[in-house]
Amino acid sequence: MEPRLAILAGTGALPQILAAGDPQAVFVSFAGVDVEVPDGLIHQPAAFDRLGTLFEDLHSHGVTEVVFAGAMSRPALNPASFDAKMMTLAPRLMAAMGQGDDALLREVAAVFTEEGFVVKAAHEVAPDLMLPAETRIGPVPKKQDVADAQKGLDILTALASMDVSQAVVVAGGQVLGIEVIQGTDAMLGFVAQTPTHLRRAKGVLVKGPKPGQDMRIDVPTIGPDTVRAAAAAGLAGIYIPAGGVNVLQRDKVEQALAETGLFLQAR
Amino acid sequence: MEPRLAILAGTGALPQILAAGDPQAVFVSFAGVDVEVPDGLIHQPAAFDRLGTLFEDLHSHGVTEVVFAGAMSRPALNPASFDAKMMTLAPRLMAAMGQGDDALLREVAAVFTEEGFVVKAAHEVAPDLMLPAETRIGPVPKKQDVADAQKGLDILTALASMDVSQAVVVAGGQVLGIEVIQGTDAMLGFVAQTPTHLRRAKGVLVKGPKPGQDMRIDVPTIGPDTVRAAAAAGLAGIYIPAGGVNVLQRDKVEQALAETGLFLQAR
Repeated sequence: MEPRLAILAGTGALPQILAAGDPQAVFVSFAGVDVEVPDGLIHQPAAFDRLGTLFEDLHSHGVTEVVFAGAMSRPALNPASFDAKMMTLAPRLMAAMGQGDDALLREVAAVFTEEGFVVKAAHEVAPDLMLPAETRIGPVPKKQDVADAQKGLDILTALASMDVSQAVVVAGGQVLGIEVIQGTDAMLGFVAQTPTHLRRAKGVLVKGPKPGQDMRIDVPTIGPDTVRAAAAAGLAGIYIPAGGVNVLQRDKVEQALAETGLFLQAR
Repeated sequence: MEPRLAILAGTGALPQILAAGDPQAVFVSFAGVDVEVPDGLIHQPAAFDRLGTLFEDLHSHGVTEVVFAGAMSRPALNPASFDAKMMTLAPRLMAAMGQGDDALLREVAAVFTEEGFVVKAAHEVAPDLMLPAETRIGPVPKKQDVADAQKGLDILTALASMDVSQAVVVAGGQVLGIEVIQGTDAMLGFVAQTPTHLRRAKGVLVKGPKPGQDMRIDVPTIGPDTVRAAAAAGLAGIYIPAGGVNVLQRDKVEQALAETGLFLQAR
């Protein structure tokens, strides 16, 4: 059977980017998730409380692979709308939900696998999303930036078992922000308000996957907005592990780096 | 020799509280640190770049013990003003400063010890600062609050080796804030802005010492402002390890808890 991809669309630019690269894909939008449906692709509407119906629809389109793309906030499920399949899945998904968003996403991926779909990572579908190792755009990081990046990675590693953070800001050895549920942009907004007397250096944003995380779901991303938010927070640049972060809209990222003077370093 | 205490005053309410409890103490204020000098105590002005002079002054007052009280931001040192003692101490202190605020404070405490002073913890001088174990003020924490408090403690423990945080907010299993350099009130202000759809429960503030930290310096504190900031962030209450946090102005803390309906639990 020809492989055929379904893009399970969340918010943000990623679903559109994947759609542009695969005109044969099926584009799945979920009720309650605000996405723009691209022209030219088969569009399959779906609902979280009717996953059995979605599985049938995907099989009827000949879909063999799925990719989770973009951000999805935790859905409000309505048991009255459950289809038969969802009735059997709900207890598992509810139990996973109680353990956190990552556990829920892992369980959802497991369910799709059991239904016969290969769950692909976004960067497997579009390898250009990840920067090759040692890529640098913009100025050369200073020695302090390199040390700050290492401290940021150490903090992400220390927090790995707690499953809470994918981004940290360190400046002159001092930690100015640790991302939690509100996301990277909100954390950078907080960092921007740090009183001047507490800042010793411009600092760097370090963003990367939680060590050991499933790279098919909840992969950290940066885009042009991340660069501009980092610049507004007064930072010198951004560090990402090569192969660990999806860089969305690379041309616009490069433009934002050129305009703000920040560096982006993949290592 | 009679023990005699010197209060090395930083900002906040703690120096005044300790002064009120020991009328024989010497109250030391440092140039550039904005403190209110209490009536009735011997007042000894001092400067960070003339520590040798301070040691002589303290000895001449018969001081045998010192206590670091309140917050001090990193001083700007002027080598042109150094006294002879400070000339010999400066390289040590500068080296410690490069390793962070905690390292600097530990080195300063070591220097006072070498000069013959016993460095006391604030709660050794004023034992009422700490709540006895199992103290609870306000409503009984819910089961979710207890679980959230445990997760908060786990995060502080995970970060212990990184020396960055004394406070965390957890709500319904989700982490809403991790305190870094800006302090607890700023972190609570950030938590207060969390979008409603990301909040599953009111949540708790967990504040405690870094595991293994020197309890004579940089001991975490809460006061009435902490209670009000936690209330403004929509939290259900505050957890502190018994014996780990100084509770300043306990009467005002109790009044703020009564007015806001939050709990304070020491365990």
